[in-house]
Amino acid sequence: MMRDRFLRACRREPVDCTPIWLMRQAGRYMPEYRKLRERYSMLEIIRAPELALEITMQPLRSFDLDAAIIFSDILPPLESMGVEVQFVKGDGPTILHPVRSGEDVERLRVPAAEEIAPYTQEAIRLASRELADRLPLIGFSGAPFTLAGYLVEGGSSRDFALTKKLMYQEPAAWHSLMDKLSQLVGSYLQAQAGAGAAALQLFDSWVGILGPADYRDYVLPYTRRAIGMAQGSGVPVIHFTTGTNGMLELIREAGGDVVGVDWRIDLGVARSRLGEGVAIQGNLDPMALLAPLPYLRQQAAELLRQADGHPGHIFNLGHGVLPATPMANVAELVDFVHTQSSRG
Amino acid sequence: MMRDRFLRACRREPVDCTPIWLMRQAGRYMPEYRKLRERYSMLEIIRAPELALEITMQPLRSFDLDAAIIFSDILPPLESMGVEVQFVKGDGPTILHPVRSGEDVERLRVPAAEEIAPYTQEAIRLASRELADRLPLIGFSGAPFTLAGYLVEGGSSRDFALTKKLMYQEPAAWHSLMDKLSQLVGSYLQAQAGAGAAALQLFDSWVGILGPADYRDYVLPYTRRAIGMAQGSGVPVIHFTTGTNGMLELIREAGGDVVGVDWRIDLGVARSRLGEGVAIQGNLDPMALLAPLPYLRQQAAELLRQADGHPGHIFNLGHGVLPATPMANVAELVDFVHTQSSRG
Repeated sequence: MMRDRFLRACRREPVDCTPIWLMRQAGRYMPEYRKLRERYSMLEIIRAPELALEITMQPLRSFDLDAAIIFSDILPPLESMGVEVQFVKGDGPTILHPVRSGEDVERLRVPAAEEIAPYTQEAIRLASRELADRLPLIGFSGAPFTLAGYLVEGGSSRDFALTKKLMYQEPAAWHSLMDKLSQLVGSYLQAQAGAGAAALQLFDSWVGILGPADYRDYVLPYTRRAIGMAQGSGVPVIHFTTGTNGMLELIREAGGDVVGVDWRIDLGVARSRLGEGVAIQGNLDPMALLAPLPYLRQQAAELLRQADGHPGHIFNLGHGVLPATPMANVAELVDFVHTQSSRG
Repeated sequence: MMRDRFLRACRREPVDCTPIWLMRQAGRYMPEYRKLRERYSMLEIIRAPELALEITMQPLRSFDLDAAIIFSDILPPLESMGVEVQFVKGDGPTILHPVRSGEDVERLRVPAAEEIAPYTQEAIRLASRELADRLPLIGFSGAPFTLAGYLVEGGSSRDFALTKKLMYQEPAAWHSLMDKLSQLVGSYLQAQAGAGAAALQLFDSWVGILGPADYRDYVLPYTRRAIGMAQGSGVPVIHFTTGTNGMLELIREAGGDVVGVDWRIDLGVARSRLGEGVAIQGNLDPMALLAPLPYLRQQAAELLRQADGHPGHIFNLGHGVLPATPMANVAELVDFVHTQSSRG
């Protein structure tokens, strides 16, 4: 029987207890993950559907989670635009030839849905088949702005100076870039739903570098378009951002059935600013999983109190699980959230 | 005659036009600053009141600013607690022996006011004398949390893991550390007012790493105490933070005559969340100073529109001036703000 409390919460329907899953729930904090990573690089795993499936399943064997999320990364889909992505050890992913001009943008192709990270689409088919009668599977994509940031900077950045430079100095090139990326993201999310994903998450992890006026003028229409395309496939969409607590209303305006918030806001405050028409996902500080258990429990209880029994709440961290996290603490958190919020 | 529109705005009194100064208005973007830095290290300049005075005055010769801010850094005051601070080239300032345990905290002394960065106090005396009949001088200090972050991490950090670890695992040591730091900061701000500073700014640049519950429990009482001590000297206090747009109400609760906000919030939204009893400083994206002039002017005009002619608005950036900023753009911004907001 399908455990559907996660999907019910996405739709703001009553649930037996608050569902919980964790961003980066499959990752370096698990010995079985590290073991596989000794033999295969990140990209090798992502490109081999059977390996991606294995890692997707790992956290489900140890924790009573309410959703799986396909193991992949936000950058590989860019390869279908004609971009070369490299995962340099220790340095994080980089773009071999960053996009810095109108000509660079022009060279980017808009691929057909089936060309976009086909190995991840296949991994979703495998995982959703394996999970079908038990748990929903989440597919995901980077949001247009975060992907644009990677493409322009060539990798991570502190201030996104080059991205903002393109935006301010070559607005036509910027809008063309975002237009192409919103098509890519929309098609890719649709394809994942078609392959069996029961929900989709859009990661706009870097958009918090922008002020509200820039977000509204240079980003919002493209995020809205990608989310609209994804919602066309009939599955709920989670819109996750960080650093946007000064403009949550605009994030809401850009769309999503669920808004994912970082840990730097009270959930009750977030609810009142977002309104009743949307579910909320979040938002424990990932660092709380490294704290002593009494503190961890107290923080989790406080979040449940802030969510106030509202059915449209999915418990999660405000960002991904940290590598130093003890597995026992994750197990404790998952069980605590279920028990503490039980409405049975 | 004293140009007092900055101080009037701090007190929310009517002004002839919106006052403007810029965080890090003396800095690497100015050739005369870089020239002096070729001969002297950061610490050498800070410790030599005549040199600190010279750098404090540099931006006033080029721009029609409404306030000066004493040239110093937030770390030197920590030396009076018995801490060794190093400025390593390219690496930013570091703490030689980080504070990681209750014993480390116990060893920190609480100095008398006159022992805290006496060279900066002397530089304030020199600068306020030189400026007395023209412009107000701002003194400043790091806030207890940001100083604690430096002390514990030993330098900058991405996630402040060690700081949060101390907070969660040794709360008694944490509270003792914050108690000592709030005394240090309060005394130091008082001493700067005594030396001639006409206003004081508290920089809590890193506190945006905390969620609201942690801020309330582990930080707010200490910030409030430091601000209260500073206000006892009779000069207005600006409370500046970044990344706290999810909990601005708590920042307000911690105190200050002026709240300084980062660029990631609409000023009108900030005003309605902070209420009428406080002035607001901010909040142009520092990156806008690197954009073409039409964009820069448009953004500045938009901020003035958001501030809506409210007398309690001090124009500033949402963070410090970036090294790549063209001086001509700074001049243009300062003049544009004055002209555009003129109520004469």
